[in-house]
Amino acid sequence: MAFRASAIRANRAIVYTQTGDPSQVLSALTYKPLPAPPAKTVNLRFLLAPINPADVNVIQGVYPAKPSLTELAENHSVFIGGNEGLAEITQVGSDVSGLTTGDWVVMTKAQAGTWASSRNVGSQDVLKLPRANGLTEVHGATMTVNPPTAYNMLNDFVKLEKDEWVVQNGANSAVGQAVIQIAASRGLRTLNLVRNRPDLADLTNKLKALGGTEVLTYDDLTDRTLTSTIIKDWTAGKGIRLGLNCVSGKDTTSMARLLGEDAYMVSYGAMSKEPLSLPTSLFIFKNLTTAGFWQSRWYKRHTREDKENLMKTLVDLVAQGKLKEPEYEIHSISSRDSDEVAGEKIRDTMARISRGQYGKKVLLKFDDAQ
Amino acid sequence: MAFRASAIRANRAIVYTQTGDPSQVLSALTYKPLPAPPAKTVNLRFLLAPINPADVNVIQGVYPAKPSLTELAENHSVFIGGNEGLAEITQVGSDVSGLTTGDWVVMTKAQAGTWASSRNVGSQDVLKLPRANGLTEVHGATMTVNPPTAYNMLNDFVKLEKDEWVVQNGANSAVGQAVIQIAASRGLRTLNLVRNRPDLADLTNKLKALGGTEVLTYDDLTDRTLTSTIIKDWTAGKGIRLGLNCVSGKDTTSMARLLGEDAYMVSYGAMSKEPLSLPTSLFIFKNLTTAGFWQSRWYKRHTREDKENLMKTLVDLVAQGKLKEPEYEIHSISSRDSDEVAGEKIRDTMARISRGQYGKKVLLKFDDAQ
Repeated sequence: MAFRASAIRANRAIVYTQTGDPSQVLSALTYKPLPAPPAKTVNLRFLLAPINPADVNVIQGVYPAKPSLTELAENHSVFIGGNEGLAEITQVGSDVSGLTTGDWVVMTKAQAGTWASSRNVGSQDVLKLPRANGLTEVHGATMTVNPPTAYNMLNDFVKLEKDEWVVQNGANSAVGQAVIQIAASRGLRTLNLVRNRPDLADLTNKLKALGGTEVLTYDDLTDRTLTSTIIKDWTAGKGIRLGLNCVSGKDTTSMARLLGEDAYMVSYGAMSKEPLSLPTSLFIFKNLTTAGFWQSRWYKRHTREDKENLMKTLVDLVAQGKLKEPEYEIHSISSRDSDEVAGEKIRDTMARISRGQYGKKVLLKFDDAQ
Repeated sequence: MAFRASAIRANRAIVYTQTGDPSQVLSALTYKPLPAPPAKTVNLRFLLAPINPADVNVIQGVYPAKPSLTELAENHSVFIGGNEGLAEITQVGSDVSGLTTGDWVVMTKAQAGTWASSRNVGSQDVLKLPRANGLTEVHGATMTVNPPTAYNMLNDFVKLEKDEWVVQNGANSAVGQAVIQIAASRGLRTLNLVRNRPDLADLTNKLKALGGTEVLTYDDLTDRTLTSTIIKDWTAGKGIRLGLNCVSGKDTTSMARLLGEDAYMVSYGAMSKEPLSLPTSLFIFKNLTTAGFWQSRWYKRHTREDKENLMKTLVDLVAQGKLKEPEYEIHSISSRDSDEVAGEKIRDTMARISRGQYGKKVLLKFDDAQ
C-alpha cells in the first residue's frame, strides 16, 4: 500500500516578486512541505482557487489591496497570487477552536495567497464553510467574492419589497448571474442589460433560465419608450429603485435614466474603463444616490458572526438549488510539470484571460505530486 | 390726511403665459385689489422677492417644478414668476390660527408666484417668520432657499464633528456663503473653491471674513501635494468627509479626489452645465457616496413643525450675527411706470442676469401706488 499522497506531496505556488503584467511576472515555485502548524494557526490544502479579474489588477500593482511578501522557500520572499479559494484543513495547531481536520474553509482575509497547494494561516483568517447537499468544490471556491457582492448589494442600500425591480448591467458577469439568482430567490424582478452579440437569444435564454425577468442590450436603451412607457408599465408607475453597475461610461448614464425617484445606483466595477458620468439633475431632482460596493471592505467592517451568517445564507441557497455553480474551466497545475513548464502554462493562461478569451471563470487546481 | 397707501394701491405682478426666454416672455400685469380672504386663506403684501437662478429655469420651462395658472385678471390666466419671497399679512380669513395681520411670512409651497404686490394664499402654504433683532426684509426674502440648503446639506448626510472639514465649490454663491457661515457657527472648517480671477485676493478676504477657513481656486486642484500632503495635514490624516457641489464637470472630478474614505458629495447645482463625472474607483475603494439636495423636496417631505424649527434655527443665527444678508441689488417696480414700461424693465434685468452681469442677488420690490 502506497503512502497517502498528501504526506509526500511537493508543494507549489504561483508567485511573483515584482508587480507587472501577469503573463510576464508570474512563475511557479516548488516549496517544502509545511511544518506542523504553530498555535492559533491551521495548515490548509487548497482544493480550487479562482483567477478573478481583481487578481490581475493586484499583480499589475494597480489594485488598492496589496498582498504581503511571504518567505515560501528559505531566503526567497515572494507574493503569492490569489485572493479567493476553497481549502481543506489538513492539520490544526493548538489553541484553535471550531476547526477540525477535513473541514472546508474559505478566506476572510484579503489577498491571502490562495494560488498555492498548501498554506499555514491564522485560524481567524478562515471561515468554516458548512457542508450541504449539492455544495460542490466549485461553489466553495467561488463563494466569498461574487455571491456575497450580489447578496449585499441587494440588501444594504434599498429595502426592496417582493416584485420590485432591480436593473443591472454586465448581467452576464459572475456577480450579475448571482444577482439574478438571489433576486429571484427573494421574489424580486431583474432587468438585465448585456452587450448586443450574435448569440443574444442564447444568452437571453440562459439568463432567464437563471431567473432573470427581462434581458435587454445597451443598444435598446436608446428607445425612449423604455423610460416613458415600458418601465412605468412593468413597475406599475413606481420606478426602479436599485441599479447595479459594473460597466460605467455612457451606457451606464443611459441605465441611470431608467431609475425612478429615490433610487440607488451601486457600482462594483467599471469594465468600460470610463468614469461614471451622470447628469447632476438626477441627483438633485430625482434624489438619485450613487454608492460603491467592495466585498473586501465588507469583510473588514463586519464581525465574524456576520460573516458566518452570510456564508450560511449562501450555502442554504445552494442547498435549495437557488444558486448554481458559475460556468468554469479548470487550469490544472500538474505535478509532472517542472516549475518552468508550470510557470509557462500559467503565464499563457493569464495572457489568454487578458485577451478576453475565457468567458468562464478559470479555477486553479494543484494536482497531487505522486 | 391721505388714505393709507395699502387701501388704494393697484396690484401688479410679473407674469408670463408661455414658457421661454425670460427676457422675452415676461410682462407686467396690473390687477384689481384682492377681495377679502376666504376661509383658511390670508391676503399678503410682498415686501421683497428674489430672482433666483432656478426662477429663470422655471420660466424657460426646463425646471421640474412647474407653476400653476392663476386667473389674476378676469378671463386672463397667467403664470406668476417667483418661488421665494417675504410677505406681510394684510388680512386673515376665518378658520386660520397662528397668523395675524402684520406678521411676516415666507412660502413653503413651491412656485407660489411671489413676483406680485399681493396675493391670496392658503394659510398652510405660508410659515410665520419669527421676528428677531437684526432680521431685515432682505434676510426674510432670502430665507427659504439658500440658507436652508446650506444648513440641511451640512446636517443630513454626514455627522460632522467640531473642527472637521467641508469642501465646497462655487463657494462665492449665495448657498456657498451660507455654508461658510453656518459651518463656522458649528466650529466646522471649510475649504472653499472658487474660479481664478483678477480680484482673487479680495474674494478670499471676503470669504474668510465670513468664516471660511481656506480659499483655493480650481486651478490649485492640479497641485498633487494638495491631496497627498496638505489636506492630510489639515485634517490630521482623517480626510474630508463632506463635499458640496454646485458646479459639476471636470473641476468637480478634481474636487472629489480631495475627499477621504466614506465621504459624501452632495450636489445642489451644476453651473458648468457638464455632468458629474467620477472615477468608479472612488465609489468602490474609497466608499464615496454622491447624493443630491433640493430644498423643494425637503419642504415637501417634512412636517410643518420641522419647517418651523428650521426657520427658527436660521433666524436665531441671524440674531446672533452669524448669518449675514446676501449681497443684493433691488429692482424696483415703480407705480409710476405703465405695465408696458415695467415689463420692459424686468425683461432688461432678466437679460442682464442671463448674461451674468449681476454678481449680487436681485430682489424685486413693488413700490406702493399712490
